[in-house]
Amino acid sequence: MSTAPELHFFFDFISGYAYLAWRRLPDFCEKYGLDLKIHPVVFGALLDHWGQLGPAEIPAKKAFVYRDGYRQAAIQGFTFNPPKFHPFNPLPALRASLWEVSGTEQHRVVDAIFRAGWTQGRDIGDPEELCRILEACQLPGKSLLSRTQEPEVKARLKEETQAAIERGVFGVPTMIFQDRLFWGSDQFPYLKLLVEGKDPLDESAVQEMLKRPRAVDRKRFTKK
Amino acid sequence: MSTAPELHFFFDFISGYAYLAWRRLPDFCEKYGLDLKIHPVVFGALLDHWGQLGPAEIPAKKAFVYRDGYRQAAIQGFTFNPPKFHPFNPLPALRASLWEVSGTEQHRVVDAIFRAGWTQGRDIGDPEELCRILEACQLPGKSLLSRTQEPEVKARLKEETQAAIERGVFGVPTMIFQDRLFWGSDQFPYLKLLVEGKDPLDESAVQEMLKRPRAVDRKRFTKK
Repeated sequence: MSTAPELHFFFDFISGYAYLAWRRLPDFCEKYGLDLKIHPVVFGALLDHWGQLGPAEIPAKKAFVYRDGYRQAAIQGFTFNPPKFHPFNPLPALRASLWEVSGTEQHRVVDAIFRAGWTQGRDIGDPEELCRILEACQLPGKSLLSRTQEPEVKARLKEETQAAIERGVFGVPTMIFQDRLFWGSDQFPYLKLLVEGKDPLDESAVQEMLKRPRAVDRKRFTKK
Repeated sequence: MSTAPELHFFFDFISGYAYLAWRRLPDFCEKYGLDLKIHPVVFGALLDHWGQLGPAEIPAKKAFVYRDGYRQAAIQGFTFNPPKFHPFNPLPALRASLWEVSGTEQHRVVDAIFRAGWTQGRDIGDPEELCRILEACQLPGKSLLSRTQEPEVKARLKEETQAAIERGVFGVPTMIFQDRLFWGSDQFPYLKLLVEGKDPLDESAVQEMLKRPRAVDRKRFTKK
């Protein structure tokens, strides 16, 4: 068994920012000797739980995040080419990415699907296309996809999502290290400080701040 | 009249990220010779319009953004100390910050309120406290605050907010330069590229991506 410190990564293929974070994880984990734990979760279920909308559900925000993704990819030197349909049904891809399904190939399965979806504009919501994507990477696409219809596999993805909610995960990508949650692909500088033992956070000070009372509550979702 | 290129800044004092962006604007505008146009807007009205929740309305997200703000402030060398009550009623502070109210003192008014709210933990939702904050900075707090009750001032803030929505503003802070919208205090590297004429964005490519169809639509806000 590994005794390396664990870095937990929560993602859904629906999120381009999750792919931006994913691209940085191998180097980051290698540099700091971290054991990467990969958690596919259903972003839509997180949104349902917290009563929130996703970026793709607000047209102006979707346009911004596509432009932002395009710029970041251009600077990082890869092609931003988002999925053929968006949003799409991520369940087959997420289920195939569960440790219980992909096992020791988990990293390669996640990478193959992310790359096809966000750099090649492929339809990663379509099981047949997913099968082709995986087979092209010498991964057993057909057997992985067939398992995504098993009741225990479906239940496992729901459990992963529920466990994430219980840990306070409200969006993707999220990284958790030593019970500290980092949301967003821009959080590596702060995560780095924590891993290096240099996190400037004074948790007791923040707890005091979070106890400060609310003065107003907005009426929610009332159109004027 | 100034012929300098305009940088438009949309903010609400309710947002700590808006303060993080605000702190960077003077140097940025000076470096590039930009004319800063300051737009107070009601974040709650943006959320209402787009059917969204604010970070402070999701407990796990509020905890994350406070920790994130604390870390960023520590690294940037200032004290993160958020408002005494949060959320609070931002309307008096926003109205006092309108150009039509604060005029040539607009920058100092916005700065005084932001600083008191987010580095001193003051109650910037309370008109009397706002008055004290402004007077301590040799600003005419009493006359500024009295104007916030005038119908035309109230109407002006609504107009600013509506105009922002019509430009696609969905959150704060937002910067707009040459009709390009940047959301978030982390966007200065990309804004810098645009201002320098080096924006890597291929707008026609992004327009094609945005035309790709949706494959699924989530049922919104249904608890399972």
